[in-house]
Amino acid sequence: MHSIFALKGHLIDCDHNKRTRFHPNSYLLIEQGLCVGTFAQLPDCYRHVPVIDYGDKIIVPGFVDLHLHASQYANRGLGLDLELLQWLEKYTFPQEGKFADLHYARTIYAAFCRELIRGAITRACIFATIHIPASLCLMDMLEQSGLIAYVGKVNMDCNCPDFLRETGAAQAAANTRQWLTEVADRNYRRVKPILTPRFAPSCSPDLLRRLGQLAQTQHLPVQTHLSENLDEVAWVRQLYPQSPHYAGVYAQFGLLSAHTPAIMAHCLYLQPQEQELLRQTGTFIAHCPSSNANLASGIAPVKRMLDAGIPMGLGSDIGAGHSMNLLGLTAQAVACSKLLQRQTAEESALSLEEAFYLATRGGGAFFGKTGAFSPGFAADVVTLDDSRIRLPGETLAQRWQKLFYLGDEREICAKYVAGTPIRLQA
Amino acid sequence: MHSIFALKGHLIDCDHNKRTRFHPNSYLLIEQGLCVGTFAQLPDCYRHVPVIDYGDKIIVPGFVDLHLHASQYANRGLGLDLELLQWLEKYTFPQEGKFADLHYARTIYAAFCRELIRGAITRACIFATIHIPASLCLMDMLEQSGLIAYVGKVNMDCNCPDFLRETGAAQAAANTRQWLTEVADRNYRRVKPILTPRFAPSCSPDLLRRLGQLAQTQHLPVQTHLSENLDEVAWVRQLYPQSPHYAGVYAQFGLLSAHTPAIMAHCLYLQPQEQELLRQTGTFIAHCPSSNANLASGIAPVKRMLDAGIPMGLGSDIGAGHSMNLLGLTAQAVACSKLLQRQTAEESALSLEEAFYLATRGGGAFFGKTGAFSPGFAADVVTLDDSRIRLPGETLAQRWQKLFYLGDEREICAKYVAGTPIRLQA
Repeated sequence: MHSIFALKGHLIDCDHNKRTRFHPNSYLLIEQGLCVGTFAQLPDCYRHVPVIDYGDKIIVPGFVDLHLHASQYANRGLGLDLELLQWLEKYTFPQEGKFADLHYARTIYAAFCRELIRGAITRACIFATIHIPASLCLMDMLEQSGLIAYVGKVNMDCNCPDFLRETGAAQAAANTRQWLTEVADRNYRRVKPILTPRFAPSCSPDLLRRLGQLAQTQHLPVQTHLSENLDEVAWVRQLYPQSPHYAGVYAQFGLLSAHTPAIMAHCLYLQPQEQELLRQTGTFIAHCPSSNANLASGIAPVKRMLDAGIPMGLGSDIGAGHSMNLLGLTAQAVACSKLLQRQTAEESALSLEEAFYLATRGGGAFFGKTGAFSPGFAADVVTLDDSRIRLPGETLAQRWQKLFYLGDEREICAKYVAGTPIRLQA
Repeated sequence: MHSIFALKGHLIDCDHNKRTRFHPNSYLLIEQGLCVGTFAQLPDCYRHVPVIDYGDKIIVPGFVDLHLHASQYANRGLGLDLELLQWLEKYTFPQEGKFADLHYARTIYAAFCRELIRGAITRACIFATIHIPASLCLMDMLEQSGLIAYVGKVNMDCNCPDFLRETGAAQAAANTRQWLTEVADRNYRRVKPILTPRFAPSCSPDLLRRLGQLAQTQHLPVQTHLSENLDEVAWVRQLYPQSPHYAGVYAQFGLLSAHTPAIMAHCLYLQPQEQELLRQTGTFIAHCPSSNANLASGIAPVKRMLDAGIPMGLGSDIGAGHSMNLLGLTAQAVACSKLLQRQTAEESALSLEEAFYLATRGGGAFFGKTGAFSPGFAADVVTLDDSRIRLPGETLAQRWQKLFYLGDEREICAKYVAGTPIRLQA
């Protein structure tokens, strides 16, 4: 690609107040992978830059998936008859155990990457499994794809089956250091490692401590699960009776702090002090409405937490969430928050504009200036041809709405990550 | 088609106990539009019948949509920022008003029918609008399609905008009789009329009485809305302070009785006596989980009502529901009932088997013996090629599950209604 070029079409993104901005028939100017800005007409000094004209198509920022498990791609849409802790034992752990076999891992991760590439997602924060070779295989494939991703080799050393248990905290931490070394040797441009203790119950205190030290000393980001399910919350309370709350467990080990960028998936049942801890430390919530319905976990009070200023994005949470279609997940976030509002008078519902914000700029913020077309933001772009779902006479705002309720990967006709076009099909 | 033939593939349907039956590599024998039965091997006496071999594909009964508004097809995925009563005023009534223009009606109904034909639905109960020419236009198109449908010209004579109000109960009833006459003249084979008072608030008591008499004297079925939204329920209580409950309003006018097949859409907030009235009269509930989330109506206690023996099926409720993909709606029924279970300890969740039952045999019962492959049932059949969504090594039960979570019209490769093949694309 040229180092400077423009995309023309109907541009739609969010401002920092979560309001949707419509720029019909406008230019998105991109230089060195960053947005220069949006223009109704190209300024004179840019009038010779190459323009890719998408005509009547819609151009939005790339979608960000803050939480999904690549290994569970093989389980998506399966085994959703149990709640979290039983579901892990019966379906998830056995599936993840198979990733000891690199050949199996390669097959599933290839299918996973094909679907990831084809959809609206440009960046993602991904759980692999405990296995180093399989995790590196996934990272290699993602690097190839052109997408930008954090990938975590999972850590777990207790409360899990033998075939998925790292043998002691010291060994688990050593595994992670070895993995980090191998990742560094590969000099990835787009894929970065993220520390990934599965969740408090499956990591010993010693392991959590070692991972916290690693996070702090090597300035590594962290992803894990927090307060997804009532039984899980009760279990953590049993395991850590001294801790003021679940988030406090991660905080006491240095895994949730202002010095460590971190993503906590789910966060349905946070106490006010936990919410405040997340806000103060700038810790991100990955809101996973589809997963939370499928596992009967409940509905996160996402509007309240968003209004409280907690950084937040959406997570498909494959495989408890069944779909990687983030357009549809955006609409589902709205629908679920309406059900929570109906159920609990003090909660209010997310607007579609706010959900669009979560799916793009909200989650994008974990990657820095990402998820909008503002000057200096990474040029992550999805171009959509909505002719399959539109009817004559619709306004641009209506076409935008329908994309979330009726759109999927069939509408996506081009995708750029940091200004680089992505090949949508292998 | 031959008067007797067989389809071969992996047959999956429900028994009357709502259990899913798997018949891998089996034959569905069809004679004169009815199922003769399923066979692992064709009996000798049938060994010369023509066989259409679908190989490794999955064959299920046709899906039944018990509640949708064809005119609102143009609004699907739009205007979901309000609750029911405000949504009707701002979005729905203005849209329905446009169907006074037959040219407009033809355009929208043609698009609606294209999508209906392409999807998993073989039978549906459809609201049109108050307009006779447009309603007949829709019925003509549906008759052409080969699908089987009940269609209702809507009645409303109060609490609605002038442009959508029939001028008085006598006129409204006369309109309906005129429409019924015109329908009778057309000698449709597959499309039948159904009386359609919009809902209690938009019909005067006099109109409800006249429609009830029509239902009773002409043995016509009825469809309407019941207990969708808390404000609506309160409004009906105001309008009919003497009535014991909302369902009682329809009952007092003969619109909900053992002599009248009827479908009540939604039924979220029924009192125990209302549920009992529905059960005793064999009145069907159209459960519309997507619509009920989109309009923040809430979640119907569908598992409890199903266990109580109330006849029930699924409704997409286009356009408050946004999608006509009944595969996805089946999964959403399960997800919503899990959220209700989480919220209310005394409710339990629907299994996927039960939701599949609702989507096929449950709703199909409104049409008689429909929605299963049992002997004597109408041969409504959908054949699915799941190669887009399956992974190697999946069992037939897993492939069946994934269809609901990940499938849509792309999986559908053939459809039969009462033994007659449907052309899926115009």
